[in-house]
Amino acid sequence: MFSESKIVVRYAETDKMGIVHHSVYPIWYEFTRTEFSKNMGISYVSMEERGLMMPLVELSCKYIRPADYDDTLTVRAWISKLTPARIEFSYEIYKEGILINTGYTLHAWVGKDLKPTNCKKNFPDIYQKLQETM
Amino acid sequence: MFSESKIVVRYAETDKMGIVHHSVYPIWYEFTRTEFSKNMGISYVSMEERGLMMPLVELSCKYIRPADYDDTLTVRAWISKLTPARIEFSYEIYKEGILINTGYTLHAWVGKDLKPTNCKKNFPDIYQKLQETM
Amino acid sequence: MFSESKIVVRYAETDKMGIVHHSVYPIWYEFTRTEFSKNMGISYVSMEERGLMMPLVELSCKYIRPADYDDTLTVRAWISKLTPARIEFSYEIYKEGILINTGYTLHAWVGKDLKPTNCKKNFPDIYQKLQETM
Amino acid sequence: MFSESKIVVRYAETDKMGIVHHSVYPIWYEFTRTEFSKNMGISYVSMEERGLMMPLVELSCKYIRPADYDDTLTVRAWISKLTPARIEFSYEIYKEGILINTGYTLHAWVGKDLKPTNCKKNFPDIYQKLQETM
Repeated sequence: MFSESKIVVRYAETDKMGIVHHSVYPIWYEFTRTEFSKNMGISYVSMEERGLMMPLVELSCKYIRPADYDDTLTVRAWISKLTPARIEFSYEIYKEGILINTGYTLHAWVGKDLKPTNCKKNFPDIYQKLQETM
Repeated sequence: MFSESKIVVRYAETDKMGIVHHSVYPIWYEFTRTEFSKNMGISYVSMEERGLMMPLVELSCKYIRPADYDDTLTVRAWISKLTPARIEFSYEIYKEGILINTGYTLHAWVGKDLKPTNCKKNFPDIYQKLQETM
Repeated sequence: MFSESKIVVRYAETDKMGIVHHSVYPIWYEFTRTEFSKNMGISYVSMEERGLMMPLVELSCKYIRPADYDDTLTVRAWISKLTPARIEFSYEIYKEGILINTGYTLHAWVGKDLKPTNCKKNFPDIYQKLQETM
Repeated sequence: MFSESKIVVRYAETDKMGIVHHSVYPIWYEFTRTEFSKNMGISYVSMEERGLMMPLVELSCKYIRPADYDDTLTVRAWISKLTPARIEFSYEIYKEGILINTGYTLHAWVGKDLKPTNCKKNFPDIYQKLQETM
């Protein structure tokens, strides 16, 4: 299973080079992770309410072609790895069918105190739902 | 009393018009409010730890001249109004001695629950320090 | 005529107070101006290509209620003033039918050199289209 | 040679998890690249004026420990690879002497048209200065 979200590039997301600033792509990844969690039936909002969060441990982006103001992009996200301690999402961004960006984000499972938590053990229903998407 | 902070414009703060995006100025205002609170002897960090926060109720900016990538700017901030329910800061931004932006932010005093709180009554020491700066 | 856009709040748009940071609202205003220009039949992209830009001269926001991560908001925009030298847009933001934010942005008409230009005289077709929306 | 810049964390850079959002680190990297170019004697501003730009091809960040509002951080940057077509910078971020983040950015040398350019051949003085820092 993967999720796709539609992004329309905002003016504020460009920089003086005339194209989208590279720091914006992780924000689009994140937006699509939110869509993914809703499509899966357990929103990230509800996960946070239950005390489960997933801060980033690692981020990787490859910029293949630039994106411009007012472009309509498709961001695709899926789970590429899952363990009781970590979760990894992978991403592809398309502009008119052409792949312009790829990336992944690795996250740690943590509780409200930002300390590591075993997702499989402490949130088995969430863990199973995540596994079923793979 | 006023505080001044030095800002060096970041590339990511520009947009495709080649100048700083207008949404960045309130972030510089906020940075200078933090400096102000530290100069005053009660940091905003310590205020938040005691359960006092000041979300924005109103924002106003006037853009007189543009700012460019790598410009060194001076942001000046001071308290322009203070009541038990509200606090207003005013700002001036200078580039090489020339005024390029003015603004103000009006804030509500709220507690951790984001509900209004009487600052004068519930945090008299903070209220007095703020008053002394005016 | 007014335009409305749907915004889903991004995680990155929140701050440690747990709500949307105040500097984000102008970015949503701008996104909705872009939609407005497209609905009107002259996109801002095409205006810039013809050498017409509209940097901000003034920004005003009133924050009535907070917005939260993953909220779906409706941003409404319309032209509230138009002269050969200036254009003003007004905004209202709604969350589940409740007004949570209002604002306006005043812009100068400038050419590619960022110098003032008379929009009515130099871009009469654009000026007329804008007028027809009022 | 490496350059270091001092960053004081802005409130707007935090998110509702209470810590700095991961998309902010690349912006700090970039700020420190600017400092690096100035220390080296050829500012990025002057490079852009001569028609040389370096958009990102790849970004990688590892988040070791979180950063908080108002933290004072040290960002260190140096050139880790240099070819006529590409340049790679590496970064380390420290909080009170403790390493909290590492990363690298890979850039393409491009001209004003965003097309690849041979830096060594077309900008030999810049290329040599960069090489001398390694």
